[in-house]
Amino acid sequence: MKKFTSIHDVQNLNGLIELAQTYKQQAFRDAQLGQHKRLVLLFFNPSLRTRLSTQAAAHQLGLYSITMNAANGWQLEFEEGKIMNANKAEHIKEAAAVISQYADIIGIRTFPSLDDRAKDYSDFILHQFIQYASVPVVSLESAIRHPLQSLADLLTIAEHKERQRPKVVLSWAPHPKALPQAVANSFVEWVAATDAELVVTHPPGYELAPEFGQQAQVVYDQKAAFEEADFVYVKNWSSYKHYGQRLAQDHNWMVTLDKLQACPDAKVMHCLPVRRNVVIEGKVLDSPHSLVIEQANNRTFAAQAVLSCLLNPKNILC
Amino acid sequence: MKKFTSIHDVQNLNGLIELAQTYKQQAFRDAQLGQHKRLVLLFFNPSLRTRLSTQAAAHQLGLYSITMNAANGWQLEFEEGKIMNANKAEHIKEAAAVISQYADIIGIRTFPSLDDRAKDYSDFILHQFIQYASVPVVSLESAIRHPLQSLADLLTIAEHKERQRPKVVLSWAPHPKALPQAVANSFVEWVAATDAELVVTHPPGYELAPEFGQQAQVVYDQKAAFEEADFVYVKNWSSYKHYGQRLAQDHNWMVTLDKLQACPDAKVMHCLPVRRNVVIEGKVLDSPHSLVIEQANNRTFAAQAVLSCLLNPKNILC
Amino acid sequence: MKKFTSIHDVQNLNGLIELAQTYKQQAFRDAQLGQHKRLVLLFFNPSLRTRLSTQAAAHQLGLYSITMNAANGWQLEFEEGKIMNANKAEHIKEAAAVISQYADIIGIRTFPSLDDRAKDYSDFILHQFIQYASVPVVSLESAIRHPLQSLADLLTIAEHKERQRPKVVLSWAPHPKALPQAVANSFVEWVAATDAELVVTHPPGYELAPEFGQQAQVVYDQKAAFEEADFVYVKNWSSYKHYGQRLAQDHNWMVTLDKLQACPDAKVMHCLPVRRNVVIEGKVLDSPHSLVIEQANNRTFAAQAVLSCLLNPKNILC
Repeated sequence: MKKFTSIHDVQNLNGLIELAQTYKQQAFRDAQLGQHKRLVLLFFNPSLRTRLSTQAAAHQLGLYSITMNAANGWQLEFEEGKIMNANKAEHIKEAAAVISQYADIIGIRTFPSLDDRAKDYSDFILHQFIQYASVPVVSLESAIRHPLQSLADLLTIAEHKERQRPKVVLSWAPHPKALPQAVANSFVEWVAATDAELVVTHPPGYELAPEFGQQAQVVYDQKAAFEEADFVYVKNWSSYKHYGQRLAQDHNWMVTLDKLQACPDAKVMHCLPVRRNVVIEGKVLDSPHSLVIEQANNRTFAAQAVLSCLLNPKNILC
Repeated sequence: MKKFTSIHDVQNLNGLIELAQTYKQQAFRDAQLGQHKRLVLLFFNPSLRTRLSTQAAAHQLGLYSITMNAANGWQLEFEEGKIMNANKAEHIKEAAAVISQYADIIGIRTFPSLDDRAKDYSDFILHQFIQYASVPVVSLESAIRHPLQSLADLLTIAEHKERQRPKVVLSWAPHPKALPQAVANSFVEWVAATDAELVVTHPPGYELAPEFGQQAQVVYDQKAAFEEADFVYVKNWSSYKHYGQRLAQDHNWMVTLDKLQACPDAKVMHCLPVRRNVVIEGKVLDSPHSLVIEQANNRTFAAQAVLSCLLNPKNILC
Repeated sequence: MKKFTSIHDVQNLNGLIELAQTYKQQAFRDAQLGQHKRLVLLFFNPSLRTRLSTQAAAHQLGLYSITMNAANGWQLEFEEGKIMNANKAEHIKEAAAVISQYADIIGIRTFPSLDDRAKDYSDFILHQFIQYASVPVVSLESAIRHPLQSLADLLTIAEHKERQRPKVVLSWAPHPKALPQAVANSFVEWVAATDAELVVTHPPGYELAPEFGQQAQVVYDQKAAFEEADFVYVKNWSSYKHYGQRLAQDHNWMVTLDKLQACPDAKVMHCLPVRRNVVIEGKVLDSPHSLVIEQANNRTFAAQAVLSCLLNPKNILC
């Protein structure tokens, strides 16, 4: 593995999940692997879970991590040939090349603009970093994908599934703000790479981008979608078609204990943070249905497996 | 010790002070104790001394520390059953449970509102974290107490006292801003647990909350209070009765070299930062009376003793 | 070495450069030197390269580093005898003494006011820290010097020079903002301490402060200055005479590929960040002329050599 930005960078998905499980059982088994190596984490947006879980993963590998909050004050220029006489003090060409010299692996978190769809869906900032960096790059969530989250999600599903081919439902849910499509996109392409029946349910207008949405069956009736589901993954996202917009908010889409009567054994997942009683009813989160805390726990081991593969490119597991 | 929030969490105070003294003599004697463990420090308010001294203490125990500045942008919901459709993106239930999975110990610094006395004095945020966390929690200063400061203060007094039962005077002093009562409250309850004559002096209206104030003798005449004092601990606090308010500022309450003529051998203490020539006269801070720098030094060893006990719950010293 | 603030703190410049080269070949050769020691880095201004390279250097020495962004919210009082009843909560006397207790070495980054020349050129903040600190202080760039940058620059020149006494040209270049003179001042005094022909070229009005400018030959004609140069070091700075001001901006001073025809083998240097097509033409930065990425790489080894000397004051190399 030379970079980690999507499922397409993974050669052996089962091997990667097994490696994560191995670390979950014995966190410090490879505590020497990162010795004398450095991970630089750049956050163009604030982060709680991703930062803590990635730093925990690095710690477990003996890998030294440094975080940079680039959210304020670090304005990068990405345009080739630009006359840089305005507010951007550094070009990506220099920034990525320079940071590469201080790091053995670079992690980057970026967010979409939610107004320029073509640019967002080219994952522009992430790919510019990869182009000019000289060390492996890990996406800590990009404009359109959140692969470390998805790997943690698959690990969680693997731990809790009770049949070979579980029914996995990704359900849109309401939210007061317009959110990226990254978690949903990414979840779809990772689950589609496993043996699962994948259903996406959302109100009309919230269809995912074709490259992601075509990998799942779409059911507009949430109730029908939930029938006999083994996993209900809940997430809000803004519209791809009416790019970045919130359409009519339908609070009936909140996931409630009542709705789960259609799938009484279903496990409920969410990447967190979650707004209680808006996205998911509090009673669901406080019930045995909920896997959200364990999912967040698995972030550490997903990150650890990925960092391990990047530190050891000959590892045939990944 | 399973949490550290007040003197009430300490089983053997002398043992804890002795452990801190041991670390002061040999900082890295337990450098393996924290191996493969993590401390996550959450600051809901900025911090200099507490952050540096706690990270130094962790370093000396081989404990990996991660700091999170939660002051901006991380709005937590604490209310049960709330419909979270406003500006708070995460509930304490998830936040505390999730962070517990990345940490072996959580440190939290919170501040009082200074307008809702009942809520502040329930130490609401701290106790919500403790309720939902699954690992030990250390208070890095809460709404109403600052126990790591108080332990450092007792260590400092133990090092400098020249009689078995010293006279310890806590003196209110002026300040341009309304400050919490945490340091004063905490100092009173920790000193009251030792063999000392404890006197609190302040202008009328600045009486501490009864649960704290009743543990000391109150003398409204600062001059009388200073007579034959061994230690003068200086601190501003806002009114408990007129909650969170500054009453008439009496600059005559500044602690000066002149006033110390009543107690020529007295040591002067303050938790820092201190406003020179407002709270304490600069000449006092620059004189042999002052212990303020040593007090700040002792923060490291106080924190180290507490972390050591939390890492090793079978330690009979604490 | 007891502090590192300028060339004047260096006893054996060649020894220091050789030590940096040794670390470049074998980064972790002294990985035990910093064991059980701490470096506290205080940034009164944001930093990318300096922070990452210094933390990388510390990591390579086994030295634990803690960073503090003091840019916001930490207002220090520097005036002796001040009545501190306004917005500054802590005096440098306490701050420097306290931090010294948590650190074995303190690094400080400050910037000039660009309006009070006398105060800036006394390097007031840096020297106040040194006065009240009880541990060695490293300048991470001060109001008037950037010595870690200069040491990295000399290391870069040493690696790339092709004759014993190279011609080194420091060229002013345009910039949309008024910048400090620190990098230029410092470069001049470090290069002047080596065997080199040192030329400074700039428009009239941008003469460096006499104590620095007198160490170099000034040539106002950029084209003539570039003749047969081995190294062209490009940097903008504001006026010393009309203190802190940008004078008439002459875009003809941008360093272009065309201009380098006068010195076809010249290497182009810049401390970064660099505004492309304003300070230096993009084509130059993308050409074999450019050493800017390697220069940034050398920041790590320069910092490592300095920290190594401060950790080991008996080292005769420095």
